[in-house]
Amino acid sequence: MLGLSRPTLRSDLALLVMLGLVDAKPKVGYTPGSAVSAGSQAGRKLLGLKVSEVQAMPVIVRETASVNDAVVSLFLENVGSLIVVDEDGCLSGVISRKDLLKVTLGNPGASTMPVSMAMTRGANVVHVSPDDSVIDAARKMIHHQVDSLPVVVPSKADPVNGRTRWDVVGRMTKTIMTQILLDLVADR
Amino acid sequence: MLGLSRPTLRSDLALLVMLGLVDAKPKVGYTPGSAVSAGSQAGRKLLGLKVSEVQAMPVIVRETASVNDAVVSLFLENVGSLIVVDEDGCLSGVISRKDLLKVTLGNPGASTMPVSMAMTRGANVVHVSPDDSVIDAARKMIHHQVDSLPVVVPSKADPVNGRTRWDVVGRMTKTIMTQILLDLVADR
Repeated sequence: MLGLSRPTLRSDLALLVMLGLVDAKPKVGYTPGSAVSAGSQAGRKLLGLKVSEVQAMPVIVRETASVNDAVVSLFLENVGSLIVVDEDGCLSGVISRKDLLKVTLGNPGASTMPVSMAMTRGANVVHVSPDDSVIDAARKMIHHQVDSLPVVVPSKADPVNGRTRWDVVGRMTKTIMTQILLDLVADR
Repeated sequence: MLGLSRPTLRSDLALLVMLGLVDAKPKVGYTPGSAVSAGSQAGRKLLGLKVSEVQAMPVIVRETASVNDAVVSLFLENVGSLIVVDEDGCLSGVISRKDLLKVTLGNPGASTMPVSMAMTRGANVVHVSPDDSVIDAARKMIHHQVDSLPVVVPSKADPVNGRTRWDVVGRMTKTIMTQILLDLVADR
């Protein structure tokens, strides 16, 4: 058996090279090659991918804007939700198509209401940081059943009730997640 | 150099085994192991994954239902859009939160309107078959800028204007795409 081990190793390596799973690099022996890395790269790349590398521009509305203004920018920008900011530009809430629909149905006065009355606010707004992994963002979206997340960094503005305030720097969406899935296949 | 090739091969293989990239199988030598296949499996699995394996239950509304009914099932079922069917149960259209928002804003009479007046209809409805790959579905969603797709099969109902009609068997969403992304990482 020992006498057979060398050719066995050899031919298995030859097979690996043939399958593109190992690259032949004569001077240093065999190292994991392009197909191995292309394969596990998909996963590794995914694990290493940061929110900042794929985030979209935030679409922002002031909390004093009207529900009508919000609906208009939602359609103009073709997004599913808007990020609401206060007078200092800090994160104040998120308003989704769902929130808007809830408030507008059978309520003709809704269009002049301020956004702040219809939005999901403050502590209930799930957000991510630019340095978070895309996978963590995906997990948050699934767990909290939201279609998008504001990407935020701590703000220099004064804390309110001892709570850090956040500057909005981007937006993560399930559309971005779907695009990443496509890119994974295209990369192969 | 030739004299060194054997230990080099050996230690590289040992390294591969250690990294989990190659499994040691004494009797047949070394074969690509779990990590290699888990790695390229992610991509391969993704390419081979069919809509039927991951689709969600369709959430359906009749075209004669009112806009108010549609909004209610949208909230009850917690979905982004509803699939609209005709009297034979065949695909007639899709109505999204966006369509509903467009029709309800500042229009107090909207809630009693039939869904058929607010939906995206017929030939404009992008759909997929259960046998299509998930990647094709993702591509359609990105290309047509929609958040979900009805999954359909040809219906036995009579064609209308020479056009095949479709039975609705499922629903694909960007939420499912986001979940697949998470599963790819969990599988590794």
